[in-house]
Amino acid sequence: MYFSKQLLEEVVAANKALAASGLAPLTWGNASGYDHVRGFVAIKPSGVPYDELTPESMVVVDLDGKKVEGDLKPSMDLKTHLEIYKAFPHVRGVVHTHSKYATSFAQAGQGLECYGTTHADYFNGTVPCVPSPSVDVVNEDYELGTGCSIVSYFQFHDIDSKQVPAALVKNHGPFAWGKGPMDAYQNALVLELCAEMAIHSLALQPDLEAIPNYLLKKHQTRKHGPDAYYGQK
Amino acid sequence: MYFSKQLLEEVVAANKALAASGLAPLTWGNASGYDHVRGFVAIKPSGVPYDELTPESMVVVDLDGKKVEGDLKPSMDLKTHLEIYKAFPHVRGVVHTHSKYATSFAQAGQGLECYGTTHADYFNGTVPCVPSPSVDVVNEDYELGTGCSIVSYFQFHDIDSKQVPAALVKNHGPFAWGKGPMDAYQNALVLELCAEMAIHSLALQPDLEAIPNYLLKKHQTRKHGPDAYYGQK
Amino acid sequence: MYFSKQLLEEVVAANKALAASGLAPLTWGNASGYDHVRGFVAIKPSGVPYDELTPESMVVVDLDGKKVEGDLKPSMDLKTHLEIYKAFPHVRGVVHTHSKYATSFAQAGQGLECYGTTHADYFNGTVPCVPSPSVDVVNEDYELGTGCSIVSYFQFHDIDSKQVPAALVKNHGPFAWGKGPMDAYQNALVLELCAEMAIHSLALQPDLEAIPNYLLKKHQTRKHGPDAYYGQK
Amino acid sequence: MYFSKQLLEEVVAANKALAASGLAPLTWGNASGYDHVRGFVAIKPSGVPYDELTPESMVVVDLDGKKVEGDLKPSMDLKTHLEIYKAFPHVRGVVHTHSKYATSFAQAGQGLECYGTTHADYFNGTVPCVPSPSVDVVNEDYELGTGCSIVSYFQFHDIDSKQVPAALVKNHGPFAWGKGPMDAYQNALVLELCAEMAIHSLALQPDLEAIPNYLLKKHQTRKHGPDAYYGQK
Repeated sequence: MYFSKQLLEEVVAANKALAASGLAPLTWGNASGYDHVRGFVAIKPSGVPYDELTPESMVVVDLDGKKVEGDLKPSMDLKTHLEIYKAFPHVRGVVHTHSKYATSFAQAGQGLECYGTTHADYFNGTVPCVPSPSVDVVNEDYELGTGCSIVSYFQFHDIDSKQVPAALVKNHGPFAWGKGPMDAYQNALVLELCAEMAIHSLALQPDLEAIPNYLLKKHQTRKHGPDAYYGQK
Repeated sequence: MYFSKQLLEEVVAANKALAASGLAPLTWGNASGYDHVRGFVAIKPSGVPYDELTPESMVVVDLDGKKVEGDLKPSMDLKTHLEIYKAFPHVRGVVHTHSKYATSFAQAGQGLECYGTTHADYFNGTVPCVPSPSVDVVNEDYELGTGCSIVSYFQFHDIDSKQVPAALVKNHGPFAWGKGPMDAYQNALVLELCAEMAIHSLALQPDLEAIPNYLLKKHQTRKHGPDAYYGQK
Repeated sequence: MYFSKQLLEEVVAANKALAASGLAPLTWGNASGYDHVRGFVAIKPSGVPYDELTPESMVVVDLDGKKVEGDLKPSMDLKTHLEIYKAFPHVRGVVHTHSKYATSFAQAGQGLECYGTTHADYFNGTVPCVPSPSVDVVNEDYELGTGCSIVSYFQFHDIDSKQVPAALVKNHGPFAWGKGPMDAYQNALVLELCAEMAIHSLALQPDLEAIPNYLLKKHQTRKHGPDAYYGQK
Repeated sequence: MYFSKQLLEEVVAANKALAASGLAPLTWGNASGYDHVRGFVAIKPSGVPYDELTPESMVVVDLDGKKVEGDLKPSMDLKTHLEIYKAFPHVRGVVHTHSKYATSFAQAGQGLECYGTTHADYFNGTVPCVPSPSVDVVNEDYELGTGCSIVSYFQFHDIDSKQVPAALVKNHGPFAWGKGPMDAYQNALVLELCAEMAIHSLALQPDLEAIPNYLLKKHQTRKHGPDAYYGQK
């Protein structure tokens, strides 16, 4: 086997979840998973409807994008996924969507600030809006450039990609990542719900301030890290 | 039995209703019930998906939070529920959600004024937005502090918790209560629907005034109290 | 039989349609029908869930509200329905809802102007927002007063109730009517959809002007009246 | 056969898709297809509910609107469809809806600018809002005039109808077209989703600028034309 069977099935499940949740109308989204033992990535094939996806139809590539397994062409956004995996080694799943509210922030060129505990439970502060690639980069390698834009923004601004597992690409839409494909999907879903609530909150209070920092930290620590007390573990 | 079987089933039903109605995406909400005969509270276990809930998986505690029955950890928000039960003795059910529109008001730090008869049928005036706990309180006992914030706001401002069975916690979201878990759920649902309509009404008329007091009172009295004539009783 | 069997079934169907379409969450809406041969009105019983409704559970009254048939109490809004039937003799069905967008206009105290052909196909101009009854009227007979408010507004402003088959009651919500219960339901549904589109259009263009009169008239005449050419008749 | 059997079935499917997707509530929308071999157009019959549609119930006409096959009256909007087929010879399917967000732009008299890559993947720039026909034209032949308004706007402003396969008619709603009825339907769906996101983006940034031209072109060329690399071809 070139790829973990269980992870491959999770990649399929995450892609189907994109459709079922409404985050990705038509074929506007893709999920991938990273098998760190073998060093390979499995990703949705380009343009194939979600309900036709099977483990066999996934495309398996190495971190340079060389195809290892699969008859189909990978998602156009593959290189963006690969940049994220290469730069953020803890990541095991990446998701891209054109979900409505997150994309509306991306189109507005506006990062999603943290206005409440719903956001604070998942993202340690603002989900940034990173620049879209410049005209030169687009002409050379657009999808690679999109990945570089995300990664360099996080590095330059010293944002922890573990604590802020998503980015909005200006004029484009959200990318989210996580401990696996389903975790990345969940982060994409939470991003969308928080983006919707932020739009309504900003309509009520255009000068809205972000959540106080001590509340943000409290929600991060009660749900994540060594002192977490959420859930049954 | 440590807890009324019928009430326990209603706690499960209220938790499942949170998911089915969309008020609580993922596991973002919890319902509890208070068995006033035995003096015990049953609440959702932390982090467990709604469709896995059974009467047996509920966690039963006394009003001090000491576990009486159940193998799982209770919802993190337990202490907030307990404060509400202790301060408002008529309450037999409490519900917490991150429903979109009510949470948007909470994030904006804005109480939900009564703009129409839909609201007036359920809430006798503004559903207040209470402060989130201070940094000291958060460091000591956050969830207890959230409960205290609700209760002390109602006491200080002399709001009747029977006539206004809900509160918005700033930067967090809504808590609702009632004569039982399903009644609390219904109040949470009505709060969400009224919050949505308020946002649209405020978009049309930013200087919108609250409903005249005589109309508010009329709707309260025709639906609640000794002179009510709504329904079949 | 005290009431046309077919019309009674249509009253039930219109009430169920209110629930199925989402126009009436919980029990927030009611439909009635007028049997003009017998002079009786059948209406939803108060507070009964829509899925429990049967022809037998409907309440049949005369135009003075005296019960002719049925074991249950009629909808609280009965007297409002009766005023509409008495003042607008062409009406054979009345529907009341708290549908979100129409109610948001009512809460804002704002009539729904005609901004497009969707509206023009059903309503010949603005659906007015009529005042809620005064404190004296509310104290004496609120629901009767609501009906009088609608009727007198149409009479005073010389609005043709056939061509504008709906009204918004300030701080309350919409009433719609028509050639039968299902036609009234459809007018309530169109009102809601037009109210939603109007809110979005007004967000884009706060100074939005109404549709030119010649377009409004064209849409009225191609769908209604002797020169209509819509549909298969 | 007067019409391609396969295309006729696609016309039915596109009409049913209008209902299933929510783009066309009630009977507010219609789809047609153009059989360029025979020179005939098949269109939805006027006022017939979508779930009753069959290939046999479609109305087949020539490009002058003369009926060739079918017992029913064609959609009122037939002449608008015909103008589009006659002026844009590459078109094989046309769809008209009153979908909420696209119609809100039409009501606001505002074209839909391209704010992101979702839009850029389908429409090469602004989807224009074309004037509604003048009073004289409406009096003479309204539906023909609507078609002329679309066609002449595209011709006068030198917009490529292949690259911008949709238009908003002021005070009315969207028309979309494409390589077949289902492609036209998909363009109508994308238009609606982009209109919704544009409204949210404009709420966040009222002075929002369109996407940079090089990004627009990149998304057009990677999905359409000889250098496209989207999908499995």
